[in-house]
Amino acid sequence: MTLLDGKQIAATIRAELRAEIDALRQAGRRVPRLGIVIVGHNPASETYVANKIKACQEVGFEAERIALEADISEADLLREVHRLNADPAIDGFIVQLPLPAHICESTILSAIDYRKDVDGLTPENVGRTVQGLPSIVSATPRGIRELLARYNILTAGRHVVVIGRSNIVGKPVAMLLMQRPYLSLPGMSASSLGDATVTICHSKTQDLPAICRTADIIIVAAGSPGLLTAEMVRPGTTVIDVGINRIDDPASPRGYRLVGDVDFPAVSPLCNYITPVPGGVGPMTIVSLLQNTLQAYHEHTR
Amino acid sequence: MTLLDGKQIAATIRAELRAEIDALRQAGRRVPRLGIVIVGHNPASETYVANKIKACQEVGFEAERIALEADISEADLLREVHRLNADPAIDGFIVQLPLPAHICESTILSAIDYRKDVDGLTPENVGRTVQGLPSIVSATPRGIRELLARYNILTAGRHVVVIGRSNIVGKPVAMLLMQRPYLSLPGMSASSLGDATVTICHSKTQDLPAICRTADIIIVAAGSPGLLTAEMVRPGTTVIDVGINRIDDPASPRGYRLVGDVDFPAVSPLCNYITPVPGGVGPMTIVSLLQNTLQAYHEHTR
Repeated sequence: MTLLDGKQIAATIRAELRAEIDALRQAGRRVPRLGIVIVGHNPASETYVANKIKACQEVGFEAERIALEADISEADLLREVHRLNADPAIDGFIVQLPLPAHICESTILSAIDYRKDVDGLTPENVGRTVQGLPSIVSATPRGIRELLARYNILTAGRHVVVIGRSNIVGKPVAMLLMQRPYLSLPGMSASSLGDATVTICHSKTQDLPAICRTADIIIVAAGSPGLLTAEMVRPGTTVIDVGINRIDDPASPRGYRLVGDVDFPAVSPLCNYITPVPGGVGPMTIVSLLQNTLQAYHEHTR
Repeated sequence: MTLLDGKQIAATIRAELRAEIDALRQAGRRVPRLGIVIVGHNPASETYVANKIKACQEVGFEAERIALEADISEADLLREVHRLNADPAIDGFIVQLPLPAHICESTILSAIDYRKDVDGLTPENVGRTVQGLPSIVSATPRGIRELLARYNILTAGRHVVVIGRSNIVGKPVAMLLMQRPYLSLPGMSASSLGDATVTICHSKTQDLPAICRTADIIIVAAGSPGLLTAEMVRPGTTVIDVGINRIDDPASPRGYRLVGDVDFPAVSPLCNYITPVPGGVGPMTIVSLLQNTLQAYHEHTR
């Protein structure tokens, strides 16, 4: 069994990004600039945004924090989105979710120019990904694909079972892995991406264990601790655990610990490859945002 | 074994549409108006466009044929698209494919306002369908869903195997049937739509027969005559055949006959339900275009 070390791969990618940005600076060119819109003062959102800004700074990107009050109207927030769409100094931007209840998230997200949508959450980018057109892929699916590729885990012709049908993980990762491999990433051979046979499972699926036992690769993104058990996994499977769940743990200084959706102690001995939680998919997600920003920068400055 | 009679269901739907349009006329309201752009003089395209105009007239819609010469520039065709986007008299429009080689189809399709995109082929509409937002679904997937619903064939919790990953059938029908059932259609109960476990298979899939034998519903859209054989189908399966292939037949007056992707004589005795070819999915596709146009009209006149 090999652990898929997302923390280490993410560090490698950050080093690659830093080298590329250093080269840009030395060539006298401007560097990528990411805008981050935060509405209100949700503490979790503040932390996420701070981490994203820190990640930008580590690789030499510029980051612009656009802080707006929680009582901003939907119309004013839309105006801000349109301003960022038009701002030539911004290569890409994200609107940190959740938004206050009086604002419709899909209205705001849909207004983002897909070429600057580095979260890859606009319908335009999702549709372009589905249709195999050049697109920005949302962070977690991109991170999963990159993790598989860096470990040379081929998906072509393999049976991938995706558990969960969220808009940010399950549906886009399924679409990404079943595509013809024309969505190549720098440094990857096209043949390592896509061409999988994909099954999408969810809460209404009947006999999930039997379906999982036919999988070569299982991607679990259900938000349910311990969902994937040993009886659902045949020997030699690759397991990607996207879940991040807090469970009470009085022995921990914080009173809780983080676990994924996989019964790791029982499942991991059966696997060829498996991601740990934490340290697997999580670190790949934030580095994917940086890669998306660089991709938008290259399109923008072409 | 029950034949899924697309021809008859389509006639029923046309009668429903005609009744609704008659009621609009009697109430003194305008009727839906569909624009059809045809570029050049491809004989097959001319026939398709003539059939679509005839279908509009039969149900009382207005149709406007916009014929452009084959040497039109991409820029001029884009201008025509923008004009139609802005024309308040047009509820929806389609650009008949294929386009001449010097014009990029995805550039033209992407420029159509998704609210008028009654072919449901813009990335925006595809992405909205994937994300479960209100959208216009492309004709064949919508027709398949309607056919299943009219025969009360539930998809919730069932295993649907889709063979083929085209942008117009395989990918959108997979996304449609795995969704939470919030995409309701008039006259259907929400519970009859979506919530399926979906597997997408294609040319790179290994052991397709074994996967098909786990299916409750098989949707074949591969363009390969006789692809689905009896050994791939367990008794009680529902089979939807989207293929339309011409094969030589000296005994036919035209010298050919139309067959689907299913070995119908061998497979049909095993099925609970199966679509014939012709007369199954085909007639549903053109009636779906009419339903999409009416949907756009209702959104437009709200």
